[in-house]
Amino acid sequence: MDVLKYLEECAALVEPEINRWIPREVQPEVLVRAMRHLIEAGGKRLRPCLTMTACEAVGGKKEDAIETAAALELFHNFTLIHDDIMDHDEFRRNVKTVHVIWGEPIAIIAGDALFAKVFEAAAANASRLGMNLERTVELFNTLSRASFELCQGQVLDMLFEKRDDVTEEEYMRMISGKTGALTEAATRVGALLGNASREKIQALSSYGRLIGVAFQMQDDLLGVLGKQEKFGKPIGSDIREGKRTLIIVKALTSAPEREKRILLKAFGKSNATNEEIRKAIEVLKKVGAVEYVAEKARKMVAKAKMKLKVLPDSKAKEALLGIADFVVEREF
Amino acid sequence: MDVLKYLEECAALVEPEINRWIPREVQPEVLVRAMRHLIEAGGKRLRPCLTMTACEAVGGKKEDAIETAAALELFHNFTLIHDDIMDHDEFRRNVKTVHVIWGEPIAIIAGDALFAKVFEAAAANASRLGMNLERTVELFNTLSRASFELCQGQVLDMLFEKRDDVTEEEYMRMISGKTGALTEAATRVGALLGNASREKIQALSSYGRLIGVAFQMQDDLLGVLGKQEKFGKPIGSDIREGKRTLIIVKALTSAPEREKRILLKAFGKSNATNEEIRKAIEVLKKVGAVEYVAEKARKMVAKAKMKLKVLPDSKAKEALLGIADFVVEREF
Repeated sequence: MDVLKYLEECAALVEPEINRWIPREVQPEVLVRAMRHLIEAGGKRLRPCLTMTACEAVGGKKEDAIETAAALELFHNFTLIHDDIMDHDEFRRNVKTVHVIWGEPIAIIAGDALFAKVFEAAAANASRLGMNLERTVELFNTLSRASFELCQGQVLDMLFEKRDDVTEEEYMRMISGKTGALTEAATRVGALLGNASREKIQALSSYGRLIGVAFQMQDDLLGVLGKQEKFGKPIGSDIREGKRTLIIVKALTSAPEREKRILLKAFGKSNATNEEIRKAIEVLKKVGAVEYVAEKARKMVAKAKMKLKVLPDSKAKEALLGIADFVVEREF
Repeated sequence: MDVLKYLEECAALVEPEINRWIPREVQPEVLVRAMRHLIEAGGKRLRPCLTMTACEAVGGKKEDAIETAAALELFHNFTLIHDDIMDHDEFRRNVKTVHVIWGEPIAIIAGDALFAKVFEAAAANASRLGMNLERTVELFNTLSRASFELCQGQVLDMLFEKRDDVTEEEYMRMISGKTGALTEAATRVGALLGNASREKIQALSSYGRLIGVAFQMQDDLLGVLGKQEKFGKPIGSDIREGKRTLIIVKALTSAPEREKRILLKAFGKSNATNEEIRKAIEVLKKVGAVEYVAEKARKMVAKAKMKLKVLPDSKAKEALLGIADFVVEREF
């Protein structure tokens, strides 16, 4: 299973549907341009792919879930636009962020407008399939609860920035909200649209949550070790930016004083030298923080794959297994 | 019909339901406090009241629409929080705005979180009533299309701030999105939940749109003429702030040069003297701009009331007629 090729095929399938929900002719033009900006800049379309593949894995067709798959990408991009404002990030997907180009007010509205479309797209899907009321309500509940959980995760993230004593458990709860909630929603809605049994819905939900969290941990690893050519950011960028990821949380609680000092010399210092960054990375490896996070992510992926045992063998199931591995093997 | 008393009764009915959707024990505490802040600060609960009354006017019970009525208030407060950020407003309902107290990031998230709850509350309502798929989908479409239209209106509002040549038609389109879309949604969902005929759904939708737009025009009038004791802002505050309302649009296109100069001496000048403001208001009256807007709002209210002819006589219908009048008679 060539996962990258599979993701590309899914992306090609969902792309026209994403476009359909943000038609270029809608007025005012600036609103639509701001809504489309990050979507057009790229992205792997991982969440729509999860939705369509989950639907297929329970016996449905990819096309059965296509409006909601598109909705997941609108949803994801809504969170990115608002996140970038809050984090004062200036670049994403190699382009300037929405608020940098159009200002914060337009960026806030563009995010809200994408969020508005999420529910309209999901409603269209339920209507087309003639879903029953119970499933339709569950579809909407899944989307709206995920967005609330995402908000909770974002607030935790902000609160943690001001604290030095964040625990591993707290960090895990935060990324579960910030990243896991939406990937769980992606697979869950796919299962709902494929008219899956409760057991399969539950299994695919757990799978989605686990790979989402593992995805974030891999992101944390790449933020420290990822190579510029592939990951798009210089090595150790998260150290310079002072991002309090699990690697740092772990290192700060387990490193001896001398190592801790080396780490803190580079951590959060935008003017840290390459040599200081190199030494800090060495510390993160030496005290076992890197391996700890990598191992934890791998275990989550293994657990996610185990959840899929309730599914019959199929190409879609194979794809879900492949995506789970990809999440922790990717270098970008 | 004592409209104020009626609104208070509706508000008392919906209040526990609004509270139920933002439980105090949800974590992180700061998120819930930010979500609840403006809701607790007051407001007439006009939109929930419209929803419940519309439901009753088509033969349902107020309680049939209570979750969605609460959702409308969450929705309204979501737009207020994001609006206040964009307009840099520091006070609303006599309290500091959310972003002033907690900062912009928390305010953005608090708005998003309220928006998330809108759809969960509406889903709960559809589920409780056992609505059919078609109506359920229409319920969600109404809410999500209204929010998209609201975004369009907000962007227009921002674009107009930079322009001197906004036409009456453009202004009307803007407030139709910014205010009319949500009041239309309020009455429309009430009619849907009351299982109304297409004719009645359409009539109540038009009624909602018309009184929303009239409400905004009355707000514009109060922004110029409203007395501090009642309206809560000093006389002529919109002139000092340079708000480009229909009154100004009209005055700038119809006033002779001399009057225009008097007006522009105070318009958008935060340090304008009370005497300059008084003279500017005199101009707005003299050139007929005040009466033009008041008359236009009254005509819209008359048209809104006409739409209700398709409804049988009832206490609820009487209330809707009373609310329509209240919209243009209120002094606060």
